[in-house]
Amino acid sequence: MTGSSIGKIFRILTWGESHGEAIGCTIDGVPSGIRITESYIQKFLNKRKPGNSKFTSQRKEPDKVSILSGVFEGITTGTPISLIIENIDKRSKDYSDIKDSFRPGHADFTYFSKFGVRDYRGGGRASARETAMRVAAGAVARKILGNSIKIKGALVQIGTKKIDHKNWSDLEIDRNDFFCPDKKTVEVWSKYLQNIRKQGSSIGALIQVKVSGVPSGLGEPIFDKIDALISHAIMSIPAVKGVEIGNGFECVSMRGEENADEISSNKNKIKFKSNNSGGSLGGITSGQDIIIRFAVKPTSSILKPKKTINKKQQNVSIITKGRHDPCVGIRAVPIGEAMIAIVLADCYLINKTRKN
Amino acid sequence: MTGSSIGKIFRILTWGESHGEAIGCTIDGVPSGIRITESYIQKFLNKRKPGNSKFTSQRKEPDKVSILSGVFEGITTGTPISLIIENIDKRSKDYSDIKDSFRPGHADFTYFSKFGVRDYRGGGRASARETAMRVAAGAVARKILGNSIKIKGALVQIGTKKIDHKNWSDLEIDRNDFFCPDKKTVEVWSKYLQNIRKQGSSIGALIQVKVSGVPSGLGEPIFDKIDALISHAIMSIPAVKGVEIGNGFECVSMRGEENADEISSNKNKIKFKSNNSGGSLGGITSGQDIIIRFAVKPTSSILKPKKTINKKQQNVSIITKGRHDPCVGIRAVPIGEAMIAIVLADCYLINKTRKN
Amino acid sequence: MTGSSIGKIFRILTWGESHGEAIGCTIDGVPSGIRITESYIQKFLNKRKPGNSKFTSQRKEPDKVSILSGVFEGITTGTPISLIIENIDKRSKDYSDIKDSFRPGHADFTYFSKFGVRDYRGGGRASARETAMRVAAGAVARKILGNSIKIKGALVQIGTKKIDHKNWSDLEIDRNDFFCPDKKTVEVWSKYLQNIRKQGSSIGALIQVKVSGVPSGLGEPIFDKIDALISHAIMSIPAVKGVEIGNGFECVSMRGEENADEISSNKNKIKFKSNNSGGSLGGITSGQDIIIRFAVKPTSSILKPKKTINKKQQNVSIITKGRHDPCVGIRAVPIGEAMIAIVLADCYLINKTRKN
Amino acid sequence: MTGSSIGKIFRILTWGESHGEAIGCTIDGVPSGIRITESYIQKFLNKRKPGNSKFTSQRKEPDKVSILSGVFEGITTGTPISLIIENIDKRSKDYSDIKDSFRPGHADFTYFSKFGVRDYRGGGRASARETAMRVAAGAVARKILGNSIKIKGALVQIGTKKIDHKNWSDLEIDRNDFFCPDKKTVEVWSKYLQNIRKQGSSIGALIQVKVSGVPSGLGEPIFDKIDALISHAIMSIPAVKGVEIGNGFECVSMRGEENADEISSNKNKIKFKSNNSGGSLGGITSGQDIIIRFAVKPTSSILKPKKTINKKQQNVSIITKGRHDPCVGIRAVPIGEAMIAIVLADCYLINKTRKN
Repeated sequence: MTGSSIGKIFRILTWGESHGEAIGCTIDGVPSGIRITESYIQKFLNKRKPGNSKFTSQRKEPDKVSILSGVFEGITTGTPISLIIENIDKRSKDYSDIKDSFRPGHADFTYFSKFGVRDYRGGGRASARETAMRVAAGAVARKILGNSIKIKGALVQIGTKKIDHKNWSDLEIDRNDFFCPDKKTVEVWSKYLQNIRKQGSSIGALIQVKVSGVPSGLGEPIFDKIDALISHAIMSIPAVKGVEIGNGFECVSMRGEENADEISSNKNKIKFKSNNSGGSLGGITSGQDIIIRFAVKPTSSILKPKKTINKKQQNVSIITKGRHDPCVGIRAVPIGEAMIAIVLADCYLINKTRKN
Repeated sequence: MTGSSIGKIFRILTWGESHGEAIGCTIDGVPSGIRITESYIQKFLNKRKPGNSKFTSQRKEPDKVSILSGVFEGITTGTPISLIIENIDKRSKDYSDIKDSFRPGHADFTYFSKFGVRDYRGGGRASARETAMRVAAGAVARKILGNSIKIKGALVQIGTKKIDHKNWSDLEIDRNDFFCPDKKTVEVWSKYLQNIRKQGSSIGALIQVKVSGVPSGLGEPIFDKIDALISHAIMSIPAVKGVEIGNGFECVSMRGEENADEISSNKNKIKFKSNNSGGSLGGITSGQDIIIRFAVKPTSSILKPKKTINKKQQNVSIITKGRHDPCVGIRAVPIGEAMIAIVLADCYLINKTRKN
Repeated sequence: MTGSSIGKIFRILTWGESHGEAIGCTIDGVPSGIRITESYIQKFLNKRKPGNSKFTSQRKEPDKVSILSGVFEGITTGTPISLIIENIDKRSKDYSDIKDSFRPGHADFTYFSKFGVRDYRGGGRASARETAMRVAAGAVARKILGNSIKIKGALVQIGTKKIDHKNWSDLEIDRNDFFCPDKKTVEVWSKYLQNIRKQGSSIGALIQVKVSGVPSGLGEPIFDKIDALISHAIMSIPAVKGVEIGNGFECVSMRGEENADEISSNKNKIKFKSNNSGGSLGGITSGQDIIIRFAVKPTSSILKPKKTINKKQQNVSIITKGRHDPCVGIRAVPIGEAMIAIVLADCYLINKTRKN
Repeated sequence: MTGSSIGKIFRILTWGESHGEAIGCTIDGVPSGIRITESYIQKFLNKRKPGNSKFTSQRKEPDKVSILSGVFEGITTGTPISLIIENIDKRSKDYSDIKDSFRPGHADFTYFSKFGVRDYRGGGRASARETAMRVAAGAVARKILGNSIKIKGALVQIGTKKIDHKNWSDLEIDRNDFFCPDKKTVEVWSKYLQNIRKQGSSIGALIQVKVSGVPSGLGEPIFDKIDALISHAIMSIPAVKGVEIGNGFECVSMRGEENADEISSNKNKIKFKSNNSGGSLGGITSGQDIIIRFAVKPTSSILKPKKTINKKQQNVSIITKGRHDPCVGIRAVPIGEAMIAIVLADCYLINKTRKN
């Protein structure tokens, strides 16, 4: 209950520090009888792992996952699934420059303030390294949801450069280094980010995730509305500063008659005229696509000197060296997908208990 | 675990339907030895209750709260606090027009889809009536946090009309019908909303809440980061479609060097140069002000006919009569404050267990 | 999470003090579509309520339950069910004799030690009055389990007087003041208890509960084994000091070959040769009857003077006046049944999520 | 929430099957700033591990524990502690005799019934192998409780052979193969058990655990009374069939005036005249010693043929070969201690939040 778990029935607990021996995740509540293999999970991890392109961190981590329990002869047994990834590229480097100073924009200061001690090696628990385990757990969650529910994320803005939604192609998303759905924007971003990287700087990003094929009835009002659970999950991803569903912040300037999605029926098929709600009405899925957008801040690990303090409360200047992403928003795409899968799998299982 | 509770140590469970006998809330985990009276809680309820002005619903509810347990001789005993409010203005009116039809933009369709049955009287459990209990619980939460932590919300935009931040006055917020911090905007909104009301329409709104005096160290990474918990709580409020912390969605177009808030120390007092983070670093409070903004959609209860279906999946047209708010965002101000108080009280208590 | 709730999916939260305004219970997680009425619940409450015979407390409480939410037109809607019972027979008597002293064997000392404050009126929250709400919640739990699962408790020993198991009759249980299954023992107990009551004394008791018709597969190893959950629930009943399942403590002196229940099959019907396990193997129900026994201590509210201390840590003598039960074990029968129903309903719902 | 976790703030999640790659445990909620080393935990594991004497299983498991996270430079950081033990002595033996048949008294039948699939290798998850992780977590729990709280278990009965309580010596407990506090009984048990082992049989046992130095105020009524939580934890240990606190089942035949422990004060030191309550009043610790006893059944893995059925529901006969304990009660002593430590650590942390 102190923050390393999420979910109620489908419940994950992750552990591990950036430069410790390993990172891991235990998943309780997976139904028995589901086919899961290491190679299946690996496929998702490969999308997130560092070093995939020159636009992500150059840390060399194969992120090879092992299943240690809960799966027997390729089938889940209903007991907890333990996943583990060894940390290979732990640098034995000197951390003395950040050991006693608090990097601005990082969790260094707050972890120290809360716990009175911190594992300073590469950010410790606060490092984005932990997100590998979210992706692994998300892969397991998808298996519970089945093939008819599709969760697909895309990067739709980097800095001031937005995609053109008219050019959207789902197939394009997996063909470039950015999870960009607009082929024409790929080139723009490529130049833009190379420039930022050369400057030792970083930039924010906007991600959109669409879930299609989701059945109606998921979500548990009034506090565990599907939008509330998804917001919780997304906002727990490192560097996320905002989340919205459906038309989101745009609704502020809309009239009731514009905003409410009209419903019609044709030959027993229910249709909504629009999707301002983003697939949730009263916190329960309506069967429409779930549309989520979230904002990822620029990483604070940059090569430009910043003012800060050290443990002795002396004023100092710091440069955060390391192998960091110029745009962490890129790798946030598979992570966002995973968190949404985790929430939906839990809601899906809970919903089995809600009607007599 | 099926959605009517929130919190871990400070944990509330609310119950009740819009037109049932009563609504209520039980709060477990309140420390003993705190002075709490009905009149103290009532003060907060009065800010939210309908009929306060011509810009909110004309339902006549005194919302008089009773404390049924957990408080003895004005002091909390450590046992659960049960709060109850009778529903006075239950209309014995004919609900036949919405009984079998699903109002667009409402939870009618999804509740029926999930549960196979619904309490159609005034929206039942999905009515915003339940938010009274959030406000009551929030009042109790504030007592745990103590007087040095201030939680103050304000309405900063209605439809296309934004306040001018340069005119911000905390005192002004409680002097008008809108929780508006900008005196000059009050008149603008007054005319704007009257017009919308006369048209039988409704409009969205943007709320900002600031928490000052919050100690560093609150929040439980990695899944129960303070921003994640607040987002969960805020997104569970009816009609909320988006939430952001600090500079929020603005971070998308920012550079790392602009975004990271520099830290300095002067005579053992720590200062941050800016507050883009909104008071949270790595999901733990930094001691800076927490800044939250959230978007509230226009209510779907409008006097204009909309297309929808009924239980038999026939296409019909519907007008949602009733005593509704032209801008539900107004009453969302005290509700947003309450939800943040609830989250902080829980984090505050949990944090007592985190250091040896 | 601070002790007033039990269950995960089917989850109850009770509140209320012995001499407060009312006591109540909110039940979250009840599936929609179940028929529940106040009179149905009342039937179970009537079995527990004080004043049923001269062998129970003479407090005059009609224990009339009201359903305030979650049921519409007699059918559960899937939203929380709020139950309330007014405290009628709150004596305005002078509590000064126990106000500042700690009754031996009571929770007075420990509540004060924990909370620094206590509601001394009739034991406050620590009074057995709260058990009414366990019985009410148990009635709802039974509805989830359906009619084929029977939960039947009986008193099998008072003080040194045991029933003769050879005379066991389920029908007899509801025909006497003791829930005694052995008609011949009724007269023995009647004289025995009258004598104890006249002496202002009290006596312990042993209860046995049998659950028949329970499907195999309930229980969640390794920590939420069915026996572990039942023990938790039973041991939370006031005055219970021990609990056992199946042959229980008798197993200490048994050999493996005697103890293991052999299994056979005849025309696709599985049969066990014996039931030493009490219906649980590895913490999961086997389909055999669940057999639970638990010990209830003699109430400490007696008319004989006992030595104790007061708040100022002065040595004093105390007599606990009041309207108490000479054998609280009698009323523990319906309470024990209820707690087992609550556990089983929760396990039954969770089990719906465990297989793909 | 599906059974592999226990605790609220101090919360452990264990995973792993008897003959899988490894077993493990993740502990969330450990306060920062506590010194913990692998060798400290190992000391406790060594007391439980198989092969310690001819009276326990001959499986050769060094049970060497590794700490993979949550501890930095020997000090807890407040993040989850991941513990792992490799399974060394996984026999590649042929399991065909138990693969399709359900061993009587074992969880084979119920796991298969619940999950439709089972890991039959050595009992899979239902094997007592998982208890190693309970012991490891218990060692961490003790660190939270500090040195003044002592948790000491002992074996007090094997089969029909009881110790003589007059001979009790705490020091003796660690000097023999049985955790026996009575030197004279050691020889008796030694002969008795050797005989049982030679017969390929097994026998039950009774364990008593005493906790001294426990502060008053721990436990969360009304459902999470200290006795209820301990009963839950103890009954979740494999093979436990009964649990009692204080005088336990003996209270059935006691009078109120005998049973209630009188209180006195001498120079501000509170003293109880007796300890029938076993250290708990109203579910909250009183400061007296906590006394718990529990019954462990004889293992069902015996060399005598028993009747059972196979998956096809055919009647068969089975002998459970393997390297099993003639009296699993011996190794239950450190496991019982560990489970009580886990419960107390959790209550200790929660209690920090209960008073203003």
